[in-house]
Amino acid sequence: MGKLICAGLGPGDPDLMSLRAHRAVTGAADVAYFRKAGRAGQARRIVEGLLRGNVVEHAMEYPVTTELRFDTVEYNDALAHFYDDWAGRLERLLQDRDVVVLCEGDPFFYGSFMHLYSRLAGKVQIDVIPGITGMTGCWTASGQPITWGDDVLSVLMGTLPEEVMRARMAEADALVVMKTGRNLPKIRAALDAVGKLDAAFLVEAGTMPNQRIRRLAEVEGECPYFAIVLVHGQGRRPEILE
Amino acid sequence: MGKLICAGLGPGDPDLMSLRAHRAVTGAADVAYFRKAGRAGQARRIVEGLLRGNVVEHAMEYPVTTELRFDTVEYNDALAHFYDDWAGRLERLLQDRDVVVLCEGDPFFYGSFMHLYSRLAGKVQIDVIPGITGMTGCWTASGQPITWGDDVLSVLMGTLPEEVMRARMAEADALVVMKTGRNLPKIRAALDAVGKLDAAFLVEAGTMPNQRIRRLAEVEGECPYFAIVLVHGQGRRPEILE
Repeated sequence: MGKLICAGLGPGDPDLMSLRAHRAVTGAADVAYFRKAGRAGQARRIVEGLLRGNVVEHAMEYPVTTELRFDTVEYNDALAHFYDDWAGRLERLLQDRDVVVLCEGDPFFYGSFMHLYSRLAGKVQIDVIPGITGMTGCWTASGQPITWGDDVLSVLMGTLPEEVMRARMAEADALVVMKTGRNLPKIRAALDAVGKLDAAFLVEAGTMPNQRIRRLAEVEGECPYFAIVLVHGQGRRPEILE
Repeated sequence: MGKLICAGLGPGDPDLMSLRAHRAVTGAADVAYFRKAGRAGQARRIVEGLLRGNVVEHAMEYPVTTELRFDTVEYNDALAHFYDDWAGRLERLLQDRDVVVLCEGDPFFYGSFMHLYSRLAGKVQIDVIPGITGMTGCWTASGQPITWGDDVLSVLMGTLPEEVMRARMAEADALVVMKTGRNLPKIRAALDAVGKLDAAFLVEAGTMPNQRIRRLAEVEGECPYFAIVLVHGQGRRPEILE
């Protein structure tokens, strides 16, 4: 019986992969990764040029992404069947080999791999390799520490109802908002309502060649998919004397 | 003029260092790291066996750690002078060489390097290499995803006043509490008050050989220094059908 290895690949720059993840990726005979149908997929893109020539690739293509609202029964059913199906397929593959699942960011932080993990834990041997989260890549790219002293950091999803988002934004010192995309106008409005819009940055493609950092208040038009909103904490620190 | 490179070393296991950090560490002629006087220091411990034989080491020893309360004028003054002094020393070293500052976890996430960064940014060239945060290492070690769906994750410091801690704990879905140590009784009481003590785990030395994971409710006695409290989110996810 083989082992299921989930390699957290980090925020995008392949050089930010851990030594352990790099070994898993470059040595893999079978890799699996999630992607939207018709797209290369972010995890697969990170490992471009690193895989063995004879690697077997298993592309796990989401049956739906944004065509259905995430809170509908149809969306939930389609995804539940999809994860069940791939959990079964991976379990069969594991009978006679190891499989490396490629995951951007960190696997246990809002990642799709968690749905395979919850189905396979206890049935097969699983090794999860943590990765640098996308948000860590983005705040490093922003050139400013995200938290100081006793700052409270809250991580919010752009899919939250606006009033919940507003309440959480008001209380935290430092903020990360993920799942931006079509939720960007709502995120902007919520930040504005709590007086934090002027302190917010939009980081696109953090650590990647097309990285771009702007003040959110100055962003117009569409929000790209790999974008995170940051508000840096301004907490307690020893003052600069000299 | 040389470059100041801050290498985020990750949660503790040297194999979880990024490829870029590993290159910086193994190639360094001069390294600097924070530590408590008389201790090896966590950052230095992570790179044990990786440094060049002729490396020059600059141990930046905190003038105080827990002898003074962090909110006193004396504590603040001592730290301010300490960071000013080391910023000056590093600036002089950088005249004719590169210096690699070693930092456990991620440098821009509650890290001491930020105090050097805020003093030297704009004066010298600085390259910050992100790392896997300690909390990411701990939730991976716990064997459970930290966040699902729309879960709000809040990161709190154990040094917060208990009533602030309680309010933030009540609102978040997933929790990370850092700076535990002598604050552990307060953290326990706050979690208990909001009904989350039974869901809380204490992860000590996550990803390191002496890693230990216990339910917080069952922990008695002293809390070790490298320990993080986790409450995992239980958010929305497609149900398991099969």
